[in-house]
Amino acid sequence: MSGIAKTPSPPYYAVIFSSTRTEGDHGYGAMADRMLELAAQQEGFLGIESAREDVGITVSYWASEESIKSWKQNAEHLEVQYLGHKAWYSEFKVRVAKVERAYGI
Amino acid sequence: MSGIAKTPSPPYYAVIFSSTRTEGDHGYGAMADRMLELAAQQEGFLGIESAREDVGITVSYWASEESIKSWKQNAEHLEVQYLGHKAWYSEFKVRVAKVERAYGI
Repeated sequence: MSGIAKTPSPPYYAVIFSSTRTEGDHGYGAMADRMLELAAQQEGFLGIESAREDVGITVSYWASEESIKSWKQNAEHLEVQYLGHKAWYSEFKVRVAKVERAYGI
Repeated sequence: MSGIAKTPSPPYYAVIFSSTRTEGDHGYGAMADRMLELAAQQEGFLGIESAREDVGITVSYWASEESIKSWKQNAEHLEVQYLGHKAWYSEFKVRVAKVERAYGI
């Protein structure tokens, strides 16, 4: 999960997941590793970047809106989304965005 | 800079700045604080989120493409962009994206 995602030329989609954690692990680390592994197997997955300090930010990149919707409906992911509300996050926000241009070094 | 940005209902824009740092500070901390202060004064600025581990991710939110362009052309910001290439970042990528929907708790 480390490093900058090697995404293709735009357009593509970004899901920006911003969160603050509750106290304690409650299985969070194992879940996060599993979700990373599972996301990377989805059709249309382009890459992911993640860092946490006061706030956690995970940005996943996707080829299409359809690929985002499929991932959101994945059975194992649905279960984790449910638990996320209950156990792991004190606050979170998901933003779905269309990447229109990109540059860098 | 801590916490999740209180953004309005979509649509709005996100600038996803992903980077890996060079060794040493080289004035980076002071620059980052100043840029945060300056960005927040710009027309169309909606909020910012930032975290760094192996990769640094800063997502700033903007009302329009015009507000993003104005910020990019800000004189003090231009100077910092130039120095960023030379001193602070071993790699970076900027992605400009239109936020189409958002939800959370």
